Amino acid sequence: MSAYDDLMAFQRETEALSSVAERLGWDQETVMPRGAVEQRAEELGAMETVLHDRRTDPRIGEWLDAAKPQTEVEQRAVELIARDYDRASRVPSKLASELARQTSLAQGIWAEARLNDTPETFLPTLDAILMLKREEAAHLSGGGDPYDALLDLFEPGAKAAELAALFDAMRPRLVDLREAILGAENQPPALQGTYPHDTQIRLARDCATAFGYDWARGRMDIAVHPFSSGRWQDSRITTRVVETDPFNCIYSTIHETGHSGYEQGIDEDYAFTPLGRGVSMGVHESQSRIYENQLGRGRAFTGWLFQRMGEAFDDLGVADADAFYRIVNRVTPGYIRTESDEVQYNLHVMLRFDLERDLVAGKLSVEDLPEAWNARFLKDFGVAVDRPANGVLQDVHWAVGLFGYFPTYALGNVYAGCLNRALRDALPDLDGALARGDASPATEWLRENLQRHGGLMEPRALIEQASGGEVSPEPLLDYLEEKFGRIYGL
Amino acid sequence: MSAYDDLMAFQRETEALSSVAERLGWDQETVMPRGAVEQRAEELGAMETVLHDRRTDPRIGEWLDAAKPQTEVEQRAVELIARDYDRASRVPSKLASELARQTSLAQGIWAEARLNDTPETFLPTLDAILMLKREEAAHLSGGGDPYDALLDLFEPGAKAAELAALFDAMRPRLVDLREAILGAENQPPALQGTYPHDTQIRLARDCATAFGYDWARGRMDIAVHPFSSGRWQDSRITTRVVETDPFNCIYSTIHETGHSGYEQGIDEDYAFTPLGRGVSMGVHESQSRIYENQLGRGRAFTGWLFQRMGEAFDDLGVADADAFYRIVNRVTPGYIRTESDEVQYNLHVMLRFDLERDLVAGKLSVEDLPEAWNARFLKDFGVAVDRPANGVLQDVHWAVGLFGYFPTYALGNVYAGCLNRALRDALPDLDGALARGDASPATEWLRENLQRHGGLMEPRALIEQASGGEVSPEPLLDYLEEKFGRIYGL
Repeated sequence: MSAYDDLMAFQRETEALSSVAERLGWDQETVMPRGAVEQRAEELGAMETVLHDRRTDPRIGEWLDAAKPQTEVEQRAVELIARDYDRASRVPSKLASELARQTSLAQGIWAEARLNDTPETFLPTLDAILMLKREEAAHLSGGGDPYDALLDLFEPGAKAAELAALFDAMRPRLVDLREAILGAENQPPALQGTYPHDTQIRLARDCATAFGYDWARGRMDIAVHPFSSGRWQDSRITTRVVETDPFNCIYSTIHETGHSGYEQGIDEDYAFTPLGRGVSMGVHESQSRIYENQLGRGRAFTGWLFQRMGEAFDDLGVADADAFYRIVNRVTPGYIRTESDEVQYNLHVMLRFDLERDLVAGKLSVEDLPEAWNARFLKDFGVAVDRPANGVLQDVHWAVGLFGYFPTYALGNVYAGCLNRALRDALPDLDGALARGDASPATEWLRENLQRHGGLMEPRALIEQASGGEVSPEPLLDYLEEKFGRIYGL
Repeated sequence: MSAYDDLMAFQRETEALSSVAERLGWDQETVMPRGAVEQRAEELGAMETVLHDRRTDPRIGEWLDAAKPQTEVEQRAVELIARDYDRASRVPSKLASELARQTSLAQGIWAEARLNDTPETFLPTLDAILMLKREEAAHLSGGGDPYDALLDLFEPGAKAAELAALFDAMRPRLVDLREAILGAENQPPALQGTYPHDTQIRLARDCATAFGYDWARGRMDIAVHPFSSGRWQDSRITTRVVETDPFNCIYSTIHETGHSGYEQGIDEDYAFTPLGRGVSMGVHESQSRIYENQLGRGRAFTGWLFQRMGEAFDDLGVADADAFYRIVNRVTPGYIRTESDEVQYNLHVMLRFDLERDLVAGKLSVEDLPEAWNARFLKDFGVAVDRPANGVLQDVHWAVGLFGYFPTYALGNVYAGCLNRALRDALPDLDGALARGDASPATEWLRENLQRHGGLMEPRALIEQASGGEVSPEPLLDYLEEKFGRIYGL
């Protein structure tokens, strides 16, 4: 066995163990008995210890020094392992385990504070986590920008300054569009009535199938907060059902199908190698978002969906497919990021991005965070936050230490905009297929041009190769202005 | 930290990891996508490697040498860890991994051979596995009896010679009882009709509840071959549904509730220590069997079940609770162990026990096994095996290397007989509660006298303490002769 072979064999086992830990997380959120909380924490803790020991195993360093990769793929595999090893080795074990312990406890404290609308019971915990994350960022950055070091964990190669410039360029057009929409005369109504649970699930399954989800390598379950989980031959989705709002179930499903479909689309030869996962959170989000929005909420696909929902439910109470399309794409004021529409979503993300940059840089204290949140929300959305659960307490991310994660949501939307333009150019007849409930031409194009490559290229290079141009916010903004301009008669 | 504390902390992590591996097995048999077979094999293989490395970690030997346990419980924990460490250290790693590899492959080969009724496609594989198991047994036994060394893995302290004497004493009375029953004039009919899936599941849930299953620490799913899985706060059961035979679902469920209820009943202080699991396969089977048979198939509980099934299904077509009781306890000729009744079950087990002892001892070759099986079946059951799938190919056990496991089924029945006698003496009003669908007095008695102790005592000592006397086959045989003598008017 060469050093390269040893390295890859070791990595393969680590990938398999990491996949096991992820499967445990799925189990916890979908099927685990409610009384098994302590046991599961201990099981996950034991897996984390094993994985941490492997990620920092000094043999990796020796193999890396001696490895002689022969091909581009081998070269990239070595590069990715070296990057992870470098990261894992920089963070002291004691700090890593303290972070794991604190963020595990913080999740419950956050949930309780959100439930009771008591930020004061959560902010001291958040402060402790922020201090640990700043320490981690200092270790990771090695003298560079600490926030960039955290961002790099989710979006390799991205820089906060570039993202800030990108977002600053987008914000005015989004704010203007939002204001124009909310000021328009002709506002679409909301869907009325209740829609039975089982019928929603059946429709959601049909939608996942329409977007090419491979049921032999996945399944769908119910979760409080929908997520997707797994890779290769076992990539599962979840959804939720709100009986008064069938779009919640349907578009959660299509969104998660985008994530899982990406994993299912990766070249099988990369399975359980460092190239065998989606390459970044931003690219992942581009796949879920283009499925959910540019394709799933387009006029063509909603035409098919209108027909299917009309058959499935006794009385939809919607006149025709055009009215249905307007209802699906309804824009209303709201506090909550996860319930937001295509237009306002990025504004929610940008708010968090700016605040967390200041937190990590030490320019904003946790104590002043609620006030900063509320001031910024008023500025961007023109509405005052009514209570902390609708403001600073709404997202779990910071409680579990996810600083540097939020901007990947908006970046994913920008990527989706670029991909959508290229996809539409390449497939002029796509809407014909979508109108028949068949998204497979789009799925095949994404698979061929993007998904199959897994971790072979860096995120930005991958998007630029697939979309045939520079990453830019223009396609997304043009698409939004055109789509919502028509819907709202702007 | 003392050496004892280090040892127990290390063990605790090993128990947690082992629990994770077991949860993966559950996932595979219940919810895993069908296309995930290769991935799951790799995940389980990686977990097995981690667990094997831990079980043979030389630090365990050092800690064991230096540990100073203070209490009876600590002493027992050290003893159990020492036993496992001794076992793991005796078997060379190469042999252990070759066994894991071969038995993993053999399962598919066996399934295919059974499906196609082609023993010749499976026997060479079985021969290879037997050779490896004989090698393993030689390492484990250290010069003692090889079969005893394998048996000890499942029933610590049991000896093949003692079991053989026990079974030889039972066989004539079982053979006589079987013949008398099958020769009786008045044979109960089979249940007619079809019984909807969901209603069966609802009834099965009620039965698990009646036997004290804690749903907050478990759940029920569907599996091809029902099993139970897990411990402590997460002990899950499975069942299956045959629409023409609701007893399959109901009694599979009650059986698995016995296994899972045992795990749920173990003292919480023992969780993730070596005392925190059921102490042996025989004791485990005693709990599943007493629930299923002595309690679940008794006249009192079936009276309640008759009423519930009458309410649940449109037309049961059974005149009264006495007729129903006879149908539940119907004895008919059959080839298959798992479909067998209380009377014939042990005869199936004894056949396998004698054959596998000869295989391990080298007195019987795999080549001659089918003929030996058929000859013995004819002798004990008076019927010729019609095809290999109904004979030597029916059980998966040998294919996956489980030599020494079968006798624990019959031993479990003997234990259940002893426990049932003590339980009935202690709870003279038990039938009154069972007739109301309430098995909790029995569950509480078993929990107090047996289950809560976990691995604290050796199996035989535990049964003798709980039942207040020597382990003997008399209570079981007396019970069977009396019960079936009445049913069949012998």
